[in-house]
Amino acid sequence: MAVAPINTSLTLRDQISTHDRGLLYGDGVFETIRCRDGKLLLGALHQQRLLNSCARLGIALDPLAVQSWLDALVDQAPSTDLVLKIIVTRGEGGRGYAPPAVPDYTFIAQWHELPPAIEAAWNNGVDCLLCEHLLSENAATAGIKHLNRLDQVLGSRELLAAGQVCSSVREGLMFDQHQRLIEGTRSNLFMVINHRVCTPDLGFSGVAGVMRQWILQCLAEQDRAVEVVPLTVDSLRLASELFICNSVFGIWPVSRVVKLANNQLLTCKRFDDTSLCRTLQKQAQNMFFS
Amino acid sequence: MAVAPINTSLTLRDQISTHDRGLLYGDGVFETIRCRDGKLLLGALHQQRLLNSCARLGIALDPLAVQSWLDALVDQAPSTDLVLKIIVTRGEGGRGYAPPAVPDYTFIAQWHELPPAIEAAWNNGVDCLLCEHLLSENAATAGIKHLNRLDQVLGSRELLAAGQVCSSVREGLMFDQHQRLIEGTRSNLFMVINHRVCTPDLGFSGVAGVMRQWILQCLAEQDRAVEVVPLTVDSLRLASELFICNSVFGIWPVSRVVKLANNQLLTCKRFDDTSLCRTLQKQAQNMFFS
Repeated sequence: MAVAPINTSLTLRDQISTHDRGLLYGDGVFETIRCRDGKLLLGALHQQRLLNSCARLGIALDPLAVQSWLDALVDQAPSTDLVLKIIVTRGEGGRGYAPPAVPDYTFIAQWHELPPAIEAAWNNGVDCLLCEHLLSENAATAGIKHLNRLDQVLGSRELLAAGQVCSSVREGLMFDQHQRLIEGTRSNLFMVINHRVCTPDLGFSGVAGVMRQWILQCLAEQDRAVEVVPLTVDSLRLASELFICNSVFGIWPVSRVVKLANNQLLTCKRFDDTSLCRTLQKQAQNMFFS
Repeated sequence: MAVAPINTSLTLRDQISTHDRGLLYGDGVFETIRCRDGKLLLGALHQQRLLNSCARLGIALDPLAVQSWLDALVDQAPSTDLVLKIIVTRGEGGRGYAPPAVPDYTFIAQWHELPPAIEAAWNNGVDCLLCEHLLSENAATAGIKHLNRLDQVLGSRELLAAGQVCSSVREGLMFDQHQRLIEGTRSNLFMVINHRVCTPDLGFSGVAGVMRQWILQCLAEQDRAVEVVPLTVDSLRLASELFICNSVFGIWPVSRVVKLANNQLLTCKRFDDTSLCRTLQKQAQNMFFS
């Protein structure tokens, strides 16, 4: 595959063409990277995923260009603890859905504030809503953090409603069309069932998160087996511990799983054990806190 | 649901904010409408679908605003036979995936040239490629012409490759994760099996096209039963006739279904019968041709 030429312009543009394929078709990918003290947290893993995602979608992104963009962005980082959002689209052109013959891409970078109260959630845990909206299934695009994120939007609408009833509800758990538990709206999840560590198989839907990957590596280094398996709502009932992760907020213990009925929250399950979560938090502590 | 105030500005903007949810998440819908002699073809059906799609996604679009936009656009139509593309996104704002509390939307309109050689395809028929990329499945968003169109992009890449081998390959047929035949990359399909007219059930994936709807209504008015059912590649083998439709090119008979292997096209099935297609074309003739 031909690689598009390096476009070194690093303007933090606030406008793009209405003919960009990112808008027209969600034809692109993104990363949200925490930037602390002038360093990108888990930067190598983010960079690798960005390139892998583009390769899977056939977007000809040059690894050297990505490296130079990220270097320049970190140099320009406006403050000490922020979130860097990177969007790479397939650019403009092509005939309708068909991509253009000459590979192209659009690179967009944005700085965002950290989400609120992420340290409190790290310490005190959060409640998770069982979302009713189900994730789409597609083996060919599963795992990729692409721009087709309507499912997360629709899941987050439910989360928003639940958060208005009770502010401790900070994440929504999402299931696929076969009622398999896959992920949070913006996080991955791990659970402990009979002392076995499990995390959902992402072969048919879900985003393969960078923090999930860090945890999998971390547990592998400690010779702690993790089962990457299909899970369901029954797995939640059997689990003694549940925690969620993403590369911006780190790792959060889950205190309760709830559902929303008639604008009231019903507790489906409480978790008292946080031991594996606390162990992993200790190992990630230096990444996320000074 | 609150409805966002009417925004009557009708600038054919060529830029949008990089914070628009249409770009960030594909959080929006679109229509492509043929405009001939200052009239929108099937305008009422397009308008109805746009509103229904927004309602299903919870985008608070005002019907009066849509009507006044379309009226103004038709008044401004730059030439006599073009395609009007309308995009409605959920606008900017919200926290991450969660939509903003105050409903908003972005309205984008674009004029495009007609696709090439659509009259030749109407008369002579086209070949259709069996695409290997499979459509995502999601009952909640099936049928909606939303901006999450990566599947169509990936299917169209295959079509592009096949079209370079043989220019008569003008459409790709797409299957879902369960190998059910659903639609073309940019069209719906009908077939005749043992004198029964069938079209795929779109309950789990696919776009419910406006031209498909017109054909369904047309056949209903003639008391001709249509079975909206799950179909597979075996249905193609059994079919005596196959045709595809969309609201820009109308109705095209399919001459051959082909697949691509080692950069060569293999014929899977030939269709000689075009009788139902020609009957419907006659009824649609005045819409699409002077």
